Amino acid sequence: MEIRVENGRVAHPFFVEIDSHSGKMDGDATHIKRFLSKLINVFADTDAAKDYLRRHGDTLIYEVYEKDIPEANGEVRFCSSITYPGKIGNEYFMTKGHFHSRPDTAEMYWCIRGKGYMVMEKEGGEHELEEMHPGRVVYVPGYYAHRSINIGNEPLISLPVYPGDAGHDYETMEERGFKHIVIEKNGRPVVIENPRYGRMRG
Amino acid sequence: MEIRVENGRVAHPFFVEIDSHSGKMDGDATHIKRFLSKLINVFADTDAAKDYLRRHGDTLIYEVYEKDIPEANGEVRFCSSITYPGKIGNEYFMTKGHFHSRPDTAEMYWCIRGKGYMVMEKEGGEHELEEMHPGRVVYVPGYYAHRSINIGNEPLISLPVYPGDAGHDYETMEERGFKHIVIEKNGRPVVIENPRYGRMRG
Repeated sequence: MEIRVENGRVAHPFFVEIDSHSGKMDGDATHIKRFLSKLINVFADTDAAKDYLRRHGDTLIYEVYEKDIPEANGEVRFCSSITYPGKIGNEYFMTKGHFHSRPDTAEMYWCIRGKGYMVMEKEGGEHELEEMHPGRVVYVPGYYAHRSINIGNEPLISLPVYPGDAGHDYETMEERGFKHIVIEKNGRPVVIENPRYGRMRG
Repeated sequence: MEIRVENGRVAHPFFVEIDSHSGKMDGDATHIKRFLSKLINVFADTDAAKDYLRRHGDTLIYEVYEKDIPEANGEVRFCSSITYPGKIGNEYFMTKGHFHSRPDTAEMYWCIRGKGYMVMEKEGGEHELEEMHPGRVVYVPGYYAHRSINIGNEPLISLPVYPGDAGHDYETMEERGFKHIVIEKNGRPVVIENPRYGRMRG
């Protein structure tokens, strides 16, 4: 269902369907796929990432469906976020993570399927983890960079909702990285310091 | 889980659980219950409403759970909305409906359970209906008053999400009413003109 925009704002009601098993959004939604080949530097162990690529070929780590709602104050943007299960070395599959361009804006995630964590981190490195599972809303306040990680055996599907004018800043975390990462140790998720913090690009 | 507020803004991540069967929100959420005795004038057939009250006693028509997120621009407010199945005369159980105090703000509804409609109406009476069922997002643009109606046999549960500074204007619709209402005719929902439009209070 196409969105009717007038004067930079949504002018007419619309609906969209999200399949709760696959996370797929119907219709003309924008579809973003993030493959491992473009995420090598996002994982702490880049050698393990390259090795995974050699052994398994390029792999879909996460994907996002979103409707092209104008990025205006007063609109409510949302998407469907799907992070697949798996690990690079002992680090769980995850999204790149981002701040908002308008840093004080919040974001709420409604978890639809799977099991994981929302990893949140402030400028100074102060970090927080909240578990994600179906039926749970996780609220990410302004000034927190945030990423989803999948610690389960099925896709982690959530519905993130954020103010129209929040915007995305991926650059900061691509450059610097999160100070803390989540790895599997003895079959359980454990938070450790990121060995490549501050130098994610090399 | 209590919300930590600093300088009028959410200062710390939090989570909340919503039971997808009952719509109940856990913890210290604010709980609003709307009983028929306070909604007599909301239904087109006030005699039928009074009769229902006599025969069934006071009846819970809908309820809402919400977290006390500051009403500030940049926050993302949300609630759990539960409208019960039933009819007053031939008009389906429904919410009062409202505009936003900041009229240009949008609202998105994620439907969790049940079957119904989002009824939307602009100042001039231009109206729109979108079906609600699990897995569907209905987007209510700014300047549309909106109400949920339950046309099924189980609770209609949805997760409305809206900008922190949207605010609620219930007054306008309590006074004037929606120009169009939805009734059951031959077992099916039909839109008709509201016989009490413009004089809902008497």
